[in-house]
Amino acid sequence: MNIFEKIIAKEIPADIVYEDELCLAFKDITPQAPVHVLVIPRQKISSLAEISPDQRELLGHLLFKASEIAKQLNISKEGYRLVINTNRYGGQSVPHLHIHILGGRPLTWPPG
Amino acid sequence: MNIFEKIIAKEIPADIVYEDELCLAFKDITPQAPVHVLVIPRQKISSLAEISPDQRELLGHLLFKASEIAKQLNISKEGYRLVINTNRYGGQSVPHLHIHILGGRPLTWPPG
Repeated sequence: MNIFEKIIAKEIPADIVYEDELCLAFKDITPQAPVHVLVIPRQKISSLAEISPDQRELLGHLLFKASEIAKQLNISKEGYRLVINTNRYGGQSVPHLHIHILGGRPLTWPPG
Repeated sequence: MNIFEKIIAKEIPADIVYEDELCLAFKDITPQAPVHVLVIPRQKISSLAEISPDQRELLGHLLFKASEIAKQLNISKEGYRLVINTNRYGGQSVPHLHIHILGGRPLTWPPG
């Protein structure tokens, strides 16, 4: 199991900020901004490159929940950045789909 | 109308790489990577901060299509980054929801 699967299985602890039947959101252990949270599906999906059409609804749920979590964490009005890394050039570090939420400071351009 | 609304209305040209009844994808005019495409909904949504629960399905469509466009543009296997900027700290430049697809080079960390 990779680290996110262990977090889902509650085998290792995480600072969870939101969870429901489809997803889990927790603080990144190497934060790149004052607020840095990851939203992941409970379902095993290695990356966005492996997504199938029947998982569209789940993708919509993850993105919608990311926007709600940003509000909950009080970074929505000031602003925030969502990032999804896919495969090597994207800089994907764990082979389980995850959405980065970064906020609490101005994010610069280009995004990496 | 902002620039994206004008592109949707076909009042100004854009280098369109994909379109369907719900969304439009075109090359960013100030690319930050060898491949830099924007995916936008035709529907007027100012940002992710303004999204409503009934728009989850549309969000899922946009994200799924972004993954398909990445495949179509031959950046999926090597890897790519999706970025959604919301409000000021996110660096959102146009008040119409858009997903950046960046690929064709290794993206660095932090993402801005």
